[in-house]
Amino acid sequence: MSVQKVFIYDTTLRDGAQGDGISFSDSGKIRFAHLLDDFGIDFIEGGFAASNERDRRFFAAIRGEKLSRAQIVAFGSTRRTDLDAAADPQLAALLAAETHHVTIYGKASPLHVAEVLRTTLEDNLQIIADSVGFLTANGREVCFDAEHFFDGYKADPAYALKALRAASDAGATALVLCDTNGGSLPHEVFAAAQAAAAALPATAVVGIHAHNDSGLAVANTLEAVRAGARHVQGTVNGYGERVGNADLAAIIPTLELKLGLDAVGRERLPKLRAVSRETAELVNQQHDKRQPYVGRDAFCHKAGAHVNAVGKNPATFEHIPPELVGNRRHILVSELSGAANIHLKAQEVGVDLAGAGKEKVRTALAAVKKRENQGYSYEAADGSFKVLLQKALGGRSAPFELVGFRVIVEKRDPAAPCVSEATVKVKVGTETELAAGEGTGPVDALHAALCKALSRFYPHVSDVRLTDYRVRILNPEAATRALTRVLVESSDGASQWSTVGVSENIIEASWQALLDSIEHKLLGGDGTSTTATASEGGC
Amino acid sequence: MSVQKVFIYDTTLRDGAQGDGISFSDSGKIRFAHLLDDFGIDFIEGGFAASNERDRRFFAAIRGEKLSRAQIVAFGSTRRTDLDAAADPQLAALLAAETHHVTIYGKASPLHVAEVLRTTLEDNLQIIADSVGFLTANGREVCFDAEHFFDGYKADPAYALKALRAASDAGATALVLCDTNGGSLPHEVFAAAQAAAAALPATAVVGIHAHNDSGLAVANTLEAVRAGARHVQGTVNGYGERVGNADLAAIIPTLELKLGLDAVGRERLPKLRAVSRETAELVNQQHDKRQPYVGRDAFCHKAGAHVNAVGKNPATFEHIPPELVGNRRHILVSELSGAANIHLKAQEVGVDLAGAGKEKVRTALAAVKKRENQGYSYEAADGSFKVLLQKALGGRSAPFELVGFRVIVEKRDPAAPCVSEATVKVKVGTETELAAGEGTGPVDALHAALCKALSRFYPHVSDVRLTDYRVRILNPEAATRALTRVLVESSDGASQWSTVGVSENIIEASWQALLDSIEHKLLGGDGTSTTATASEGGC
Repeated sequence: MSVQKVFIYDTTLRDGAQGDGISFSDSGKIRFAHLLDDFGIDFIEGGFAASNERDRRFFAAIRGEKLSRAQIVAFGSTRRTDLDAAADPQLAALLAAETHHVTIYGKASPLHVAEVLRTTLEDNLQIIADSVGFLTANGREVCFDAEHFFDGYKADPAYALKALRAASDAGATALVLCDTNGGSLPHEVFAAAQAAAAALPATAVVGIHAHNDSGLAVANTLEAVRAGARHVQGTVNGYGERVGNADLAAIIPTLELKLGLDAVGRERLPKLRAVSRETAELVNQQHDKRQPYVGRDAFCHKAGAHVNAVGKNPATFEHIPPELVGNRRHILVSELSGAANIHLKAQEVGVDLAGAGKEKVRTALAAVKKRENQGYSYEAADGSFKVLLQKALGGRSAPFELVGFRVIVEKRDPAAPCVSEATVKVKVGTETELAAGEGTGPVDALHAALCKALSRFYPHVSDVRLTDYRVRILNPEAATRALTRVLVESSDGASQWSTVGVSENIIEASWQALLDSIEHKLLGGDGTSTTATASEGGC
Repeated sequence: MSVQKVFIYDTTLRDGAQGDGISFSDSGKIRFAHLLDDFGIDFIEGGFAASNERDRRFFAAIRGEKLSRAQIVAFGSTRRTDLDAAADPQLAALLAAETHHVTIYGKASPLHVAEVLRTTLEDNLQIIADSVGFLTANGREVCFDAEHFFDGYKADPAYALKALRAASDAGATALVLCDTNGGSLPHEVFAAAQAAAAALPATAVVGIHAHNDSGLAVANTLEAVRAGARHVQGTVNGYGERVGNADLAAIIPTLELKLGLDAVGRERLPKLRAVSRETAELVNQQHDKRQPYVGRDAFCHKAGAHVNAVGKNPATFEHIPPELVGNRRHILVSELSGAANIHLKAQEVGVDLAGAGKEKVRTALAAVKKRENQGYSYEAADGSFKVLLQKALGGRSAPFELVGFRVIVEKRDPAAPCVSEATVKVKVGTETELAAGEGTGPVDALHAALCKALSRFYPHVSDVRLTDYRVRILNPEAATRALTRVLVESSDGASQWSTVGVSENIIEASWQALLDSIEHKLLGGDGTSTTATASEGGC
């Protein structure tokens, strides 16, 4: 028997972005779509087609991108009570998004028909039928989100099912049961989803859309699937309004590994942790270390007895092998746990640890460990990792020496922007160079001054451009004394590298990342130092 | 019919403290015990009686405290395979804790008997019977935690039930089914719990202890209760090893409000949010704003359509009235929002828009919109929102005027940290004040200088502390020229507020947030300006 397929429908860009503090940049949305496409997600909801300019920009931009599998979906609602479907500007906007798939939400609960829509129960069924019919007549494949389905089913089961049926009869192919308020319990969801499946034609796909207000979104989703649903809506990391949506990062592995269903395919499942972490980066959220399956601590063992048992047989205290979802075991008591990973990572950035002496390798490993304990994170900073390893292994002289720097940010006129100026003093061999730079902010000014100071000796540093700049506060509760981690991405046109800095002082953290970036450039691609040549060069 | 009682058993002090970064001070444990006692929790597990000095200190100290309802429980395990119960030092330590209730864990899974305990299945049953018998013979009421019960039940149902029965026959009054690895699914838990209840005498209390590795700890707990369990183990906020234990803050309200059971009593439920927040304080964790029921965002509304509906009838988008668990409704102002949202939000922060003229309201709305288009985000910055509205509505003079500032960050010795100094010049009435401050970073230095400059006129600005600092790069691809949004949270001990700043220059963005914070403080709680008084005051 073949494994049954469950369609995965991501609504991070729409429902997820309703979450407090969750927002994507325009380019971040495109990167996110590629991330999900690569992971094997079936549907990516791009946003409200009619609501704002930014969502419209996404639909326009994504048309130019090549996706291998995922379908982009435009989101909207049923027609207004006072307009024909053909005259409703919101439905017109859905068509204008030019996606093959569209999703509209409509009412399935008598309370909402009466109090929010303020029309009759019969009229609502007509509204659903008209709206779905209009979209299918225009060649769209329609998914119908039955808002408040479970509350509606509790109040009036026959009517809630009629609403689904109205959408299905009008041509909607997926009928999604929404627990919009997140108040339903797993056994209630199971029973209602079974009733929905029974009331619809066998060709209809039943879907589930759960919110986590009772801490039950994942369970409710799984119970709906057990009752026959084959379309699962959720968001990566459970981002979403109020306490969030159903977390796809928790649901997908359970579907694949515990219910024996096909969601993204077992072979893609090891990408899960990276998808979860990169999504957190894109919306600038701290990745939750306590997240099921993908959190840093998900396979972390602390108590002595557990660690011993895991040593004897991992299955004794691990519900799944962590590698299946791209995670790894983490022993809090053992300092040696990272050595193997550091070897792998060194290989990855082209540093040969195997060829170095044992003592030097130990020094290098200790240096990495020490920095990691201070809050440095090399997972996303290959450039700094390489610079650090090379320094620890020795064998090359530093291309330059920092003597000092000073940054001044000044506001003289309250109505005008600040002025930022930096001076940097470096020593190359026996020569000292002092240079000044200015910029839109202190980091920009420092970068300009550093490049200028070095360009006489190393003309090609002027190729280095900063292409990305990210700031993460590691312990926000320490407020302005908090530890700050800065990640910088640099490019010289030919290649890209990323570097990291950590300090209580954001300028110092940025400076460390800038220094590493320039050092990485001067190391050259093969890890050898570039020779200094005194010449004039712009920056 | 009377409402059925479910006993609540808290293991935050033991299993919760296994969580990464979770630890209580000695006095914090005592405060925590009183907090739970006051909330109506039945059992408080104090720790491993035999494992360490700190847990023993707790048992000694708590004997001197008067609790109104809660029973303190000492935790340990069944006897060693090679010792009589009476000779086992660990069981002796359990008695030495001098609690009436004790809990011991034992094996219920053949895998663990063979691979961890390394004995026979029969011997394990004898070990359970001996250990429980020894404790009951010594006058203790015994709770038996059947470790890995669900994995054991899957592998060998008859044996898992035999282990429970051995404990029950030896006198254990509560038999707790543990999903130790957190890998079980709700329907599996329901079936196994039903079987356990059927296999035990009617007087036995069945319990549940769930871990959240699959994101299902809350659901698994509820399913066990539906199957007949009347004893629920968990931790406040779900703290615990790996991804955590079942969250009592999510379970208790569902038991009370949705399953109609008596856990702590409906009248105590409004304390839930305070219990959750104070526990986070005691273990020095940020309270999770996305936590079901108790999180800051649990009843937070953002999208325009939702806010309108909630205005019409709260039940349309809230699964329970927030007051029942001590929480409250919260309106997020966002780019999707319309005038209605801003009106509601103004009411929330105590600004009366209804009383202002139509023209002024229009000006205020336009000001909010304009700032949001520039990247300001007021959803998490109530303080700035209030300051902005007040300014737009007019009618109050600015408490001070900024003349200028200068920040210098300097590194003279490459091996030493940077030095950060700031000067700030302000004008209050006709007087000008110039002050200097230093700090660990530029923002810290600016805050110090600003407070110093103003404290002569407004002594109470020295109460203002920065409690949180967050940085978001809005368009990271613009690198060091990217737009930066800074969020600052401040407190004066009595109340908290948050403010926002946006600029290409991170120092300028931070400065704006600092200015708004101080202006908010000077506005006072009722929105009226504080009068300047020239006096000396520290900061």
